[in-house]
Amino acid sequence: MTTTSDRTAAQPTAAETPEAPETDRLTGPAFVRDAAAAPEALAAPAAPPRPRRVPVGRPDADGAPRVDVPALHHLLLGRWPQWRQAARDRAADPDFWKDESLSMAEHRERTLEQLRRLAQEGSHQVWLAFPERLGGGEAPGANLAGFEELTVADPSLQIKAGVQWGLFASAILHLGTPEQQDRWLPGAMDLSVPGAFAMTETGHGSDVAAIGTTATYDPQTQEFVIHTPFRAAWKDYLGNAAAHATAATVFAQLVTNGVNHGVHCFYVPVRDAGTMEFLPGVGGEDDGLKGGLRGVDNGRLHFTRVRVPRENLLARYGQVAEDGTYTSSIDSPGRRFFTMLGSLVQGRVSLDGAASVASKLGLAIAVRYGAERRQFTGASPVEEVVLLDYATHRRRLFPRIAETYAIHFAHDGLLDLFDEVFSGAGDTPENREDLETMAAALKATSTDFALTTLQECREACGGAGFLTENRITSLRHDMDVYATFEGDNTVLLQLVAKRLVGDYARQLGKQVRSGQGMARFVVDQAVDRVLHRTPLKRAAQVLGDVAGGAAEHLLDAATQRELLADRVATKVEEAALALRPAQKADPVTAQRLFDDNQVALVDAARSHAELVRWEAFTAALAKVEDPGTRTVLTWLRDVYALTVIERDLAWFLLHGRLSTQRGRAVAPALEALLARLRPHVLDLVDAWGYGPDHLRAKIASGAEKQRQDEARAYYARQRAEGAAPVSEKALRKQERAARR
Amino acid sequence: MTTTSDRTAAQPTAAETPEAPETDRLTGPAFVRDAAAAPEALAAPAAPPRPRRVPVGRPDADGAPRVDVPALHHLLLGRWPQWRQAARDRAADPDFWKDESLSMAEHRERTLEQLRRLAQEGSHQVWLAFPERLGGGEAPGANLAGFEELTVADPSLQIKAGVQWGLFASAILHLGTPEQQDRWLPGAMDLSVPGAFAMTETGHGSDVAAIGTTATYDPQTQEFVIHTPFRAAWKDYLGNAAAHATAATVFAQLVTNGVNHGVHCFYVPVRDAGTMEFLPGVGGEDDGLKGGLRGVDNGRLHFTRVRVPRENLLARYGQVAEDGTYTSSIDSPGRRFFTMLGSLVQGRVSLDGAASVASKLGLAIAVRYGAERRQFTGASPVEEVVLLDYATHRRRLFPRIAETYAIHFAHDGLLDLFDEVFSGAGDTPENREDLETMAAALKATSTDFALTTLQECREACGGAGFLTENRITSLRHDMDVYATFEGDNTVLLQLVAKRLVGDYARQLGKQVRSGQGMARFVVDQAVDRVLHRTPLKRAAQVLGDVAGGAAEHLLDAATQRELLADRVATKVEEAALALRPAQKADPVTAQRLFDDNQVALVDAARSHAELVRWEAFTAALAKVEDPGTRTVLTWLRDVYALTVIERDLAWFLLHGRLSTQRGRAVAPALEALLARLRPHVLDLVDAWGYGPDHLRAKIASGAEKQRQDEARAYYARQRAEGAAPVSEKALRKQERAARR
Repeated sequence: MTTTSDRTAAQPTAAETPEAPETDRLTGPAFVRDAAAAPEALAAPAAPPRPRRVPVGRPDADGAPRVDVPALHHLLLGRWPQWRQAARDRAADPDFWKDESLSMAEHRERTLEQLRRLAQEGSHQVWLAFPERLGGGEAPGANLAGFEELTVADPSLQIKAGVQWGLFASAILHLGTPEQQDRWLPGAMDLSVPGAFAMTETGHGSDVAAIGTTATYDPQTQEFVIHTPFRAAWKDYLGNAAAHATAATVFAQLVTNGVNHGVHCFYVPVRDAGTMEFLPGVGGEDDGLKGGLRGVDNGRLHFTRVRVPRENLLARYGQVAEDGTYTSSIDSPGRRFFTMLGSLVQGRVSLDGAASVASKLGLAIAVRYGAERRQFTGASPVEEVVLLDYATHRRRLFPRIAETYAIHFAHDGLLDLFDEVFSGAGDTPENREDLETMAAALKATSTDFALTTLQECREACGGAGFLTENRITSLRHDMDVYATFEGDNTVLLQLVAKRLVGDYARQLGKQVRSGQGMARFVVDQAVDRVLHRTPLKRAAQVLGDVAGGAAEHLLDAATQRELLADRVATKVEEAALALRPAQKADPVTAQRLFDDNQVALVDAARSHAELVRWEAFTAALAKVEDPGTRTVLTWLRDVYALTVIERDLAWFLLHGRLSTQRGRAVAPALEALLARLRPHVLDLVDAWGYGPDHLRAKIASGAEKQRQDEARAYYARQRAEGAAPVSEKALRKQERAARR
Repeated sequence: MTTTSDRTAAQPTAAETPEAPETDRLTGPAFVRDAAAAPEALAAPAAPPRPRRVPVGRPDADGAPRVDVPALHHLLLGRWPQWRQAARDRAADPDFWKDESLSMAEHRERTLEQLRRLAQEGSHQVWLAFPERLGGGEAPGANLAGFEELTVADPSLQIKAGVQWGLFASAILHLGTPEQQDRWLPGAMDLSVPGAFAMTETGHGSDVAAIGTTATYDPQTQEFVIHTPFRAAWKDYLGNAAAHATAATVFAQLVTNGVNHGVHCFYVPVRDAGTMEFLPGVGGEDDGLKGGLRGVDNGRLHFTRVRVPRENLLARYGQVAEDGTYTSSIDSPGRRFFTMLGSLVQGRVSLDGAASVASKLGLAIAVRYGAERRQFTGASPVEEVVLLDYATHRRRLFPRIAETYAIHFAHDGLLDLFDEVFSGAGDTPENREDLETMAAALKATSTDFALTTLQECREACGGAGFLTENRITSLRHDMDVYATFEGDNTVLLQLVAKRLVGDYARQLGKQVRSGQGMARFVVDQAVDRVLHRTPLKRAAQVLGDVAGGAAEHLLDAATQRELLADRVATKVEEAALALRPAQKADPVTAQRLFDDNQVALVDAARSHAELVRWEAFTAALAKVEDPGTRTVLTWLRDVYALTVIERDLAWFLLHGRLSTQRGRAVAPALEALLARLRPHVLDLVDAWGYGPDHLRAKIASGAEKQRQDEARAYYARQRAEGAAPVSEKALRKQERAARR
C-alpha cells in the first residue's frame, strides 16, 4: 500500500520528464521478480519482445499526457510474462479457436483434441503446477497465469483443461499421498486418463459438506463401497463425465466402523478405456446442451455399490487402516474438511483471471468499434459523430475499463498470494485463509462484472454486437456459468462476510481482554459512529468544500481510501453488532437474525472486494515509471473510485460520510474524468495486448472505419461535384426565406 | 388514476369480505370491454374457461390474506382474453416449441414451417390487424395481445412472424394506398410472398433518416432506380433476407427532379420465387449465427440500380406523378418522416409485451424451483432450508415479480392506447405522440429488465439454471437483441426525454404568455426547488417520522406518487433549464450542452417509465375486487415503489426529497414486505397462467421436490432405524462431554 498521495506524484513535472536511463525499466522490480520466480528446471519459452522505447508517455507539446503503450503492456503482463505470452500465442493459433459452426458433439471432440495437443506440450503449458519428478514445473502461479489466457482461444478449452488438470489431476496432487501421485498423476497429466471431478451433486451444489454419496469401508475385503443412496445424490454438471472420462475423483462421506468422518475424495475408474462403456455399478447421463461452454461434455454419474480398493482413498489428510481405523493429522473434522477443500482454491483464482480476460476482450472490441462507428450528426450538419464522443457511450464503457484495470491489478496480487502458498514459500494458515477469502471475494465480483460488461459491450455495438461473428455474445454465453460454478457467487460472498465479521469479533475480543470491557466497547463504537463521527465529518466537509471544492477532495487518494475503507469497516461492524445476540439465542432466533442480516453481509463483502481492488490499483500506480502513463492511470483509478462511490452513494449519504454538497459533485467529477480520458481509451485497451487474432471480431478489425470513410468520401465527392440532390428541407427553408 | 389512498381500501375489512354476487366479476368492466372490442366479423376462438369461484382471496382463519388465483389470472389476461389465451394454447402445442437440438439451417426451416401453419389459421391468429375486405380482423390490439404470446413457444417464431406480418405486411398496410394493399397484402398475409423489411443499414441503425440507399425517379421509364451507393448502405440484420424473402419493403431516400424528399418505402421483389435466386441487381449476404434467434434468417441486401415501376412507391404519405412531381398530404418533411415511421410503432409495443412474457417465464421457473430446492441447514440441524426462505433469494427475485406486474399493467395501458389509435377510435396527433413516447419508454426499459431478470433467474437456479433443458439461458439468448432492435434502447430513451423536455418547454411558454414572464418563472422554479420545497419537506418528514414512523409513510400511495412524480418533474426541469442556452448557441456549444446533459436526459426518461408503471399498477389495484388479492397486490405495488426509490435513493437524498431518517427506512421496509409476500409468491407467478407446457423447464416440473422428498425420507428412515452412522463431529462432542 502506498500512503502518500499518489495523485501529487502522478502530476508530470518538469523534474520528472527527462528520460530515465535505458536500463531502469528493464531491471526494475517486475523483471527481477520474474527471474527469481522462474524455476530453473523449466525451459521457459522465449521471453516476449522487450517493450519498444518510444518517445511517448510524456506530455505532448501541448502538455497533454500520453500513455506509453508498450511499457504499460509489459507491466500488465505481470510476474510471469513469458508464460502468459506463451498462452496468448497458443490462443492466437487458429487450431485452438472456438469454431462456432460445430454441433455440440463436434465441439466436444475438437476440444478434447485441443487438450491432447496441450498435453503433448507438457511442462510448457499445462504441467507447470505438477511435481518436477513427474515432469512438471512446480510453478503454480505461472501455471495459472497461462491457464487463464486459454479463455482467449475458447472458454470451453479453458474449462475442459481446468477440469482435467485443475480439478481432476489437482485433487490427486493435493489430496493424494506421494505414492498416489506417482500412481495416478502421469495418466491425468498426459490425458491418457481423462477424468471427472465428481464433487457436486444434483441436490447439493455449494454445500459440499452435505453431499449424499457414501464411501463405506468394508474391512472384510479392504474396499470402499461407493454408493449413491438417492437421485439427489447423483453427481452432476461434471465436465468430462458425459463422454470422455475414464476415471473420476469422487467426493463422498467416508464411513468406517459406523462413524461418518465427513467428505473425502476417492479415485474411482468409471469407464472402460477401450469400449468407453461404464464400468459395472457406474451409471450416468449427459447434461446435454447448456447456455454456453458447449465444448465441455458435462454430465451426471451415479454409483451402485461400486467397490474400490482401500488404497483409492486419497489419503493425504485422512487414512483408513486395514481394520477400518480412521486417522488424520487434522483433529477437527471441520478444519479437516476446509483444508481439503481449500487445497482446491486455484479454480476460483483462475476464474477471477478468466473473468478479467473476457472483460478485456469485450471492451477492446466495443471501444475499437465505438472509435470508428458514426451515428447521428452533432454540431456539424454533414459529419456524423463517433460513438465514443457521446457522453452516454463514455458512461457505458469507460468506467468498465477502469474497473477492469482494478480487477487486473487485484488479480495480480491474488496470483502472488496463490503462488506464495502453493509454491510452499509462504504456506501458513494465515496466508491460506487470506487466499481463500480473497479468491472468494474477487471471483464472486469479477465474474458478475464480466457478465454485465460483456452485455454492455454487446449493446454498445448495436445489432452488430448480436452477431456471432463479432464474438461478444459467444463470450458472454460461455462466461455465464462462471457466476455459479466453483462456488455460487452469493454463497462465496457470505463466506467472505463471515470471515470479515469473524476478524472483527476477534479484534473486539482483544479489546475486551485488554480490560476495556465489552459493554464499554460497544457503546464507544456506537457513539463514535452515530453521534460524533458522522456530523463532525459532515461539518468538516462543508468547510472543506467551501474552501477547496468538493470534486477536488473526491480526487484525493487519501479521501478515496478513507471513504472506501471506512465503508467496509462500518458495514462489517454493523453486521457484527446485529449478529451478536445470535451467539446466545435459540436456533430459530439465531437463524432469523442471520436471515435479517444476510443482504447486509453480502453487501459488506462486495464493498470489501472493491476496497481490495482500489488498494491494488493504487499500489500499481507506484510501479508506473512513465509520468504520462501514470497520470492517465491515476485518472483511471479515480474513475474507479468515483464509480464505486456513485454505485453506493446512498450509503455514503445515509451514513453521513459524504455531505449532500459533496455527493452532488460525484457525477460531474466522474463525467469530467471520462471526457478527459477520451483521447486515451484506445491506448488503454491496446495495452492489454490483444491483437486481431485474439479479438477475432469483424467490427474491431477496422472494417467499420473503412465503411465510414467510403460513405463520407461519397458524400464529399457529391458535394464537391454539386451532384448531390437538394434536400426538400433545405429547399423549403430557401423558399421561406425568399418569401420574406 | 386513483387519487384516494388505495392502501386503506386494500385492507380487508369485515364489510368487504362477504362474497360478491356471482355475476359481478363476470360482467365487470373488463368483460364488457372485451365484448365491445371483439369485431363482429370475427369468429373469435372459444373464450377461456371462466375463473373458478373458489373460497380463496379472503383472510384465512388466522386473518392472513390470500390471493384468488383464478380471478387474478383472468384480470391479467387483459382486454382480449380469448385472443391471448388462443395464442397461449398455440404456444403449448409441441409443434411450435423451440427445438434446441436443431442446427441453424434446420431451425430456420422449422420456423418457416410454423409460420405457414399460422398463415393457414388466418384471421384466428396472424391476420387480426389487416383489413376485413382482405380477410383480416381490423383488431390491432387483439392482434398484438396474441402475437406477443408467441414468445412462449419460441422467440424466433415471434420475431419471424413479426417480420412477416408486423413489419413487411404492416409497411404495405400503413404506408400503402388501398390499391397497393389489395395488390400486395394477400401474398404477404398468406405467406406466399415471404418478405423482408429493409430499413436498417450496416452504417445506420437507429438513425433511419440518414440511410444511404437511394430511389431516384426516372421519368423516361416511369421507374424508380433503387441503388446502394456504398458498403455502409447495405441493408443489414433483416429477418427473412438471408434465405426466405422473395420481396422486400425497402426504405430509401426518394430523389425526383433533383430533390431529395427524404426516406420513403418501396415494394421491391428480391428473389425469384421458383429458384430462390436473387433477381438481377439484387445481392446479399447471410448474417450467419447470432447470439440468439437462430430460427430467424437475418441477412443483408444490396441493390445495384434495380428498377421498379413508379407504382411501387408505397404512396400513402407521398406520391410521385408520371412527370416526377412530388406531392404529399404532409407538408413538413420532418413531420412526414415521423408520421411514416410512427405508423410502425407496433413493433415496439409488441416487444414490450414480449419482454413481459419472457420475464414471467423466467421468474415462474426460478420461483418454482426456489420453493422446492433446499440448501444448507438453518435453525434445524437436520432439515435444510428452502431457497425462498433465504433473505438474499427473496431480494433477488421478489422485487422482480413486483416490477413484472408493474410492466404488465403498463403494457395493458399501452395496448389500449395502441388499439385506440390504430383501430381509428382515437387516432389523434396527441394520441399518436403519446403512443410513440410511451412505447419508446416502456420498450426500452422492459427489454433491459427482461435481460437482467432472466440472468438473475438463471443464477438463482445455480448450475441447473445453465442447462438448456431448464430454458432460462435459451430465453435470454433470444431476448438479447430486443435491447437494440426496433430502436436502440439508449436512443429511444433520448427520444422520450426530448418529448418530456419539449412538453416542459411548452408549459413554460404558456406561463410566459400568461404574463408571468420568463425570468420570473425560472426564478420561481429554482427557488421552489432549492430553497423552500426541499428543506420544508425534509423538516415535515422529520416531524412525521417521529410521529408516525418512516416506513409507514413510504407505504402510503400518495407519498409514493409524490416522490415518483416529483422526481420526473425535477429531472426534466433541471435538464430543460440546463439545455435552454443551446437554443441561441452556436452548433458546437449546443452540441456540448446536449452532450453534458445526455446522461441526465436518459435518466429522466427511465424515471418517467417507472412513474408510468407505478400509476398503471395503482390504477389496476382498483379493478381487483377480491380483498385478499388486493391486499397482496398492494404489498406488491409497494415493493415496486420501494424498489424504484431504493434504486435512486441517492437522488432522493441529494435533492432533499427524503430525509436521512426516511432514507434509512427504505431497505428495512422493503425487506419486511418481501418476507410478508413469501407465502404468496407461488400464487403470484401462477396467476400469470403459464403451465408446464409453457414453462418447459425440468426444474419447474416438481422433479426437484420429488428428489428432495426422497432424500429427506432416506435420512428420516435411517434415523428411525438407528442405521445412520454417527458423525465424527457428534462423537467428539460426546467424548469431550464425557471427559468433563
